Amino acid sequence: MRRHTYYEKIVAVKALRLDPELKLVMDAAVPRRPDEALVQVVAAGICKTDLEIVKGYAAFRGTLGHEFVGRVVESPDHALVGKRVVGEINAGCGLCAQCESGDSRHCAERTVLGIKNRDGAFAEFLSLPVPNLIAVPDEISDDAAVFAEPLAAACNILEQVSIDAASNVAVVGDGKLAQLITLVISGTGCHLTIIGKHPEKLRLASRFGATSTLRASDLHGSSYEARFDVVIEATGSPSGLEASLKLVRPRGTVVLKSTHHGSSSLDTSLIVVNEIKVVGSRCGRMRRAIDFLARRQVDLNYLVSERLPLEKGLRAFDVAAASDSMKVILQMW
Amino acid sequence: MRRHTYYEKIVAVKALRLDPELKLVMDAAVPRRPDEALVQVVAAGICKTDLEIVKGYAAFRGTLGHEFVGRVVESPDHALVGKRVVGEINAGCGLCAQCESGDSRHCAERTVLGIKNRDGAFAEFLSLPVPNLIAVPDEISDDAAVFAEPLAAACNILEQVSIDAASNVAVVGDGKLAQLITLVISGTGCHLTIIGKHPEKLRLASRFGATSTLRASDLHGSSYEARFDVVIEATGSPSGLEASLKLVRPRGTVVLKSTHHGSSSLDTSLIVVNEIKVVGSRCGRMRRAIDFLARRQVDLNYLVSERLPLEKGLRAFDVAAASDSMKVILQMW
Repeated sequence: MRRHTYYEKIVAVKALRLDPELKLVMDAAVPRRPDEALVQVVAAGICKTDLEIVKGYAAFRGTLGHEFVGRVVESPDHALVGKRVVGEINAGCGLCAQCESGDSRHCAERTVLGIKNRDGAFAEFLSLPVPNLIAVPDEISDDAAVFAEPLAAACNILEQVSIDAASNVAVVGDGKLAQLITLVISGTGCHLTIIGKHPEKLRLASRFGATSTLRASDLHGSSYEARFDVVIEATGSPSGLEASLKLVRPRGTVVLKSTHHGSSSLDTSLIVVNEIKVVGSRCGRMRRAIDFLARRQVDLNYLVSERLPLEKGLRAFDVAAASDSMKVILQMW
Repeated sequence: MRRHTYYEKIVAVKALRLDPELKLVMDAAVPRRPDEALVQVVAAGICKTDLEIVKGYAAFRGTLGHEFVGRVVESPDHALVGKRVVGEINAGCGLCAQCESGDSRHCAERTVLGIKNRDGAFAEFLSLPVPNLIAVPDEISDDAAVFAEPLAAACNILEQVSIDAASNVAVVGDGKLAQLITLVISGTGCHLTIIGKHPEKLRLASRFGATSTLRASDLHGSSYEARFDVVIEATGSPSGLEASLKLVRPRGTVVLKSTHHGSSSLDTSLIVVNEIKVVGSRCGRMRRAIDFLARRQVDLNYLVSERLPLEKGLRAFDVAAASDSMKVILQMW
């Protein structure tokens, strides 16, 4: 007779849940799903999307969190047990055309870790299908691995839009995602301008490869209008799209990254008159991000504002919501 | 000594001007510009954009109108005199990179007939640069030629987006532009669904090549969400974009045609989450439209609601603004 492991006997976990307010729950159900792996979360990052979900975006109820690194403690594929992993956050139905083509990110029936019908990473344990898990090489630190999910989202841009050394590109925003985008896009050798509100964050963008930086307050009535071939909107703010539409040249491309709760006001005629292409961009492939981190030994500690234990999760959300904050990491152990 | 022609001696023209209200002016200045051709307007069409300009779109002051057919009465290129013509409505500076590349439609300094810093076609005469004028073959009627400008805008879609026989395409809207788009897009052999509010206009769309038609009221909670590869928004209404974003499949394309005065409310997260491409589409090349009309003997009279003389211009605008109206044509002579 098989012996029960310690992990099989866990009956409850600590978790930061939204239901309907954000609260720390000490006895949440163990997120075990049939045929999936159980992952003990080591660290998890708070993302702007998490802040929007708390405001009502995606109408989610459950354990928040989708940026994490953890260790597999149970798995139908025993070879995975003990491995340090990150995870693709979208879990598809496995049957539809999108899933069959190998891209469950757009499966209509998908669950999404901490975003849609699936408890997330702000907990002691999480569950994901085995194919979603990607082993993290030893040379990548836990902190760096937590950035794999937003870094994958940054890498995704290059799969959607053609950028090369001749391109004149702007990133609008200077937050965490904007910095990771700077890191990835600067690798193309393009002329890369980062436009933001915080001098210290703009300095960081220079370190991450920006060719030039610009204060948002210096934009008005400036010669920057209609100047860029590609503008990447990563402000996290509803006003970011309209600002980007003014910066891009006629027939140029705006990559839209920000998601928010509710509708915002937009002069869509800008898109039509200048025949702009607006490309929505969400999740990328985690494998690309892990390869990037293994290849480029970038110190991402510059992007970490604070580390707090899961028990201080509510305070961590307050810190993350401050305008000068960068990444807040929840340490589980 | 050279004799003055009749046309050189004209001192004033009748024109329908916006200043700041729409009014019929009997003694407007002759729209003569140095080095340009003077065209006697034969007929001109009222477009949804004209109705929006009256509401404040484009902040235009002057003679309205940009869809026309006319006859050249004066020209630096004498070979043009007497020719029946339509005209490219954008006149570039001739010096910038956009103009040098042969596309003055996006010159930042451009004037646009009846839309931007250039008196338009709702007048007895208009002025355009010689290179803007395109002779109309005899087999194309005056009425059909008036449709060359919106037809060019419809043709422009195929220069921006790849559509073939395997594509599942929807046109949202059943007005004049939607019908012309149907005519052009149906030529690709794609599966083409027209979604509109007016049964009689949907019947017309079938005549113009739609594979199937759908009442907008039948859309709600339907199986049409996220179904189309390409959705062409041609409603002329601010709500058209959000409806289109719901119809297009993940990673599909929405072609945005409508321009309106002011901002509208939009849930831009739809674009990001489903990674949709929104492509703004404005003017096309008139030559393509003239070629289309010469090749395809399509009866466009179905699209004409009413013909009125320029003197009844104010009434013509009222007729054009009615929801069941199609094209209202102003006859100058």
